[in-house]
Amino acid sequence: MTFSSQLLENAVNEFAKLPGIGKKTALRLVLHLIKQPEKDVSHFSEVMAKMRKEISFCTKCHNVSDQPVCNICSNPSRKQQLICVVESIRDVIAIESTQQFNGTYHVLGGIISPLDGIGPETLQIESLVNRVKQDEVQEIIFALNPNIQGDTTVYYIGRKLKETPVKITTIARGIAFGGELEYADEMTLAKSITNRIPIEHYIATAG
Amino acid sequence: MTFSSQLLENAVNEFAKLPGIGKKTALRLVLHLIKQPEKDVSHFSEVMAKMRKEISFCTKCHNVSDQPVCNICSNPSRKQQLICVVESIRDVIAIESTQQFNGTYHVLGGIISPLDGIGPETLQIESLVNRVKQDEVQEIIFALNPNIQGDTTVYYIGRKLKETPVKITTIARGIAFGGELEYADEMTLAKSITNRIPIEHYIATAG
Repeated sequence: MTFSSQLLENAVNEFAKLPGIGKKTALRLVLHLIKQPEKDVSHFSEVMAKMRKEISFCTKCHNVSDQPVCNICSNPSRKQQLICVVESIRDVIAIESTQQFNGTYHVLGGIISPLDGIGPETLQIESLVNRVKQDEVQEIIFALNPNIQGDTTVYYIGRKLKETPVKITTIARGIAFGGELEYADEMTLAKSITNRIPIEHYIATAG
Repeated sequence: MTFSSQLLENAVNEFAKLPGIGKKTALRLVLHLIKQPEKDVSHFSEVMAKMRKEISFCTKCHNVSDQPVCNICSNPSRKQQLICVVESIRDVIAIESTQQFNGTYHVLGGIISPLDGIGPETLQIESLVNRVKQDEVQEIIFALNPNIQGDTTVYYIGRKLKETPVKITTIARGIAFGGELEYADEMTLAKSITNRIPIEHYIATAG
């Protein structure tokens, strides 16, 4: 791409550093910003710089937070003895959007993946084990993606917690709503039969 | 989406204002920024604010430019008597990338579209007519998108320039390289036959 303006080129290059944004998309975004009032663009800039500068993480669950302890961990109406273990902040937002979970979270910051150089010591596993012991946690629910790395992580943490009385569960695997049986993979279909649910329970939790 | 941080929510909302960026993509971009060093994010912010604040437009061709006259218009090796008329800055970048054009440009800033409330008076048509007259321009090439609005714009400007000796052309319409005849629309196929090229000329201009 050939630019007639260095300012334009710099802005396009900055946007193109973002994941999933190519040069053409970056140009489209910058040309959009050029058309906006100057104060809107300076507001955009300020919000980004301020966010990066001031954002912090909950000392308990490692979710993003504006206070030392996030508003989920500090909410007295949420069960502190029920922890949902997730890979990233994105998963917290996804589960919170369902409005079905009233426990707390623990953000690992990744999953164990030796091939990518991510070992257990780089994740927030130590602090999870401490929480389970100190807060007398009754149940932890693993909500990790269903793949080898996710299963390895579940297994590793499960072993670390063997000595504690905590109950360990994982979210249900099965056929998604709107999914078609004939297109489901064999593994999912097999698991959905093994872990079948009594009809009374299914009806009670429907909707 | 439910956020545990106001800073995070504000940043996601700002990104989601950009065209083609939904909430999920915005979140992905913000979470990427959170992982970057603080100085990189503040650099990103500064580049955007500076770009919007300082960017200006060439007084001659209305392309973006860091100087009052852009580096295409002020380049003595480019033909001032040959003007390529385009809708937007993006088209200038696309044509410049071909490295096949050594004239100058004129950015209209849109095309005539009465249904969208865009009349000729909102576009840079007056200044184009003045350029043609003052600079004794020999040829203008219309490189507008092939649709009703594009054709209307070509027709309107053509009438405005009727009294001048300038030669008016448009870029060729035809079957694209790599395109398949059987999938081409009838209009394009018909035009490509009407405007067929002598084989000597085709070979002479082949890449």
